[in-house]
Amino acid sequence: MAQWIDGAALAQQVRETVKQRVAEMTRQLHRPVYLTAVLVGGTAAGELYAQRQRDACKAVGIEYELITLPHDADKEMVSRRIKQLNEDAAVTGIMLHLPLPEHLNATELQYQINPVKDVEGVNPANIGYVVYGQTLIAPCTALAAIELIKSTGVPIRGAEAVVVGASQIAGRPIALLLSEQMATVTLCHIATRDLAAHTRRAEILVVAVGKPNLITADHVKEGALVIDVGINRITLPDGTKKTVGDVDFAAVEPKAAYITPVPGGVGPMTVAMLLRNTLRSAELLSR
Amino acid sequence: MAQWIDGAALAQQVRETVKQRVAEMTRQLHRPVYLTAVLVGGTAAGELYAQRQRDACKAVGIEYELITLPHDADKEMVSRRIKQLNEDAAVTGIMLHLPLPEHLNATELQYQINPVKDVEGVNPANIGYVVYGQTLIAPCTALAAIELIKSTGVPIRGAEAVVVGASQIAGRPIALLLSEQMATVTLCHIATRDLAAHTRRAEILVVAVGKPNLITADHVKEGALVIDVGINRITLPDGTKKTVGDVDFAAVEPKAAYITPVPGGVGPMTVAMLLRNTLRSAELLSR
Repeated sequence: MAQWIDGAALAQQVRETVKQRVAEMTRQLHRPVYLTAVLVGGTAAGELYAQRQRDACKAVGIEYELITLPHDADKEMVSRRIKQLNEDAAVTGIMLHLPLPEHLNATELQYQINPVKDVEGVNPANIGYVVYGQTLIAPCTALAAIELIKSTGVPIRGAEAVVVGASQIAGRPIALLLSEQMATVTLCHIATRDLAAHTRRAEILVVAVGKPNLITADHVKEGALVIDVGINRITLPDGTKKTVGDVDFAAVEPKAAYITPVPGGVGPMTVAMLLRNTLRSAELLSR
Repeated sequence: MAQWIDGAALAQQVRETVKQRVAEMTRQLHRPVYLTAVLVGGTAAGELYAQRQRDACKAVGIEYELITLPHDADKEMVSRRIKQLNEDAAVTGIMLHLPLPEHLNATELQYQINPVKDVEGVNPANIGYVVYGQTLIAPCTALAAIELIKSTGVPIRGAEAVVVGASQIAGRPIALLLSEQMATVTLCHIATRDLAAHTRRAEILVVAVGKPNLITADHVKEGALVIDVGINRITLPDGTKKTVGDVDFAAVEPKAAYITPVPGGVGPMTVAMLLRNTLRSAELLSR
């Protein structure tokens, strides 16, 4: 049976390390590590999410400020606000809540964020730095996947790695980070003809599609390390709801050497990576 | 026997299209399409290369200006010059000749170039836009490889593609562009354990390592499309010099369906892509 990779416990360790360094930084800088989040168009879901972020930041000593702009804020208004935050020395980190209202282009606005303050690592320049092997701030979900892999001690260099799902926010950055760590990486997606032929080669298999039970025992090599990035809310036959990943956990667990549960795997680690990135931004700024 | 992909002839077609559009743009804008190249520390090789660029630009109606900065120019001096060029409305394209003197960091300076004027597509933000599937200006060598593949009519979507070599300037961007076109891409490199096992799966094989005869007939699938990005200067037993790629051409040619010769394949197409990118910058600026 596979060993579970306990994302919640590992995230707790990360938070403790971050908390300690944030306290040191705050003393050194004589001001707090300060994350400003911009939410365009306040919805109940958006505000609940922001509240959770505030709590997560507070728990490690990071100040959190939420700026809510009106739903009809235009590109110039959001840009101007980002520019102010870039220039505000008290603000050490900036993030833009997604999704944005339809009239706004996320990438265009993320590009405005000073790469050093870009705690989500989503400014295209930060993605480019990853490609260049000069990572400044990498995307949180991708970092979470890499940290979970590293926690097992399985070597990444030279490993056969297969990433399923080529999304901007998860699959592509994960493939880039694995490649930066010198794995031989294959990126599979909707147009891949024989998915199982690829996944069966994988010593490290990362799945980030958003489709329950996409990966069955048949897709997995004996002894593989399996990271399940998917978070899907499904309804069981008896009407109850459940959160599952993209991997058929019960079927794959006996075959894999390591596996992340959903929930409790990549999810909590992603939140911890946002905190670690926020610390990193403050550290980069103080140099 | 493989059909040769004639990079020189295809480059000529590209140049003709570019020439026509440059003439139209010049009339529309009432000013030329204008590329400024920055060379830090004039060496004979650097200046010869710049002279060739000037000739290539002139042939399609693009104005070319070379700015030579002293060998000991510091980061601030180069940055300031780039900033001036960003702000100069007459300059529609900017490129920075590499290699730079050792005290300068290429990526840091390339990041200063306005992404729209970045005709080499090397600003990390432009790399990031490729990852995001929102390509503005892509790197020339990678574009050349893709154009040569497209010229054959072999479909890229869903194809098994293997890229050998993970350099910043060639292998990585090529893998990204192939992935953007929905090939299933594997990126191999120095740490790849069984290179031949990967390359033998490839319907599209792109090699960008810089090592003569790295790829033999044994590495290639029957009927593959082979793009050889390598340019190596070797000395034959009789003392004469010869330019060869990374592929053992004589051995692989009978097995492949399509193959690029070296010289005459990717090389001339890369120069043509620089011209096309320079046109594209001017077009983007005029919007």
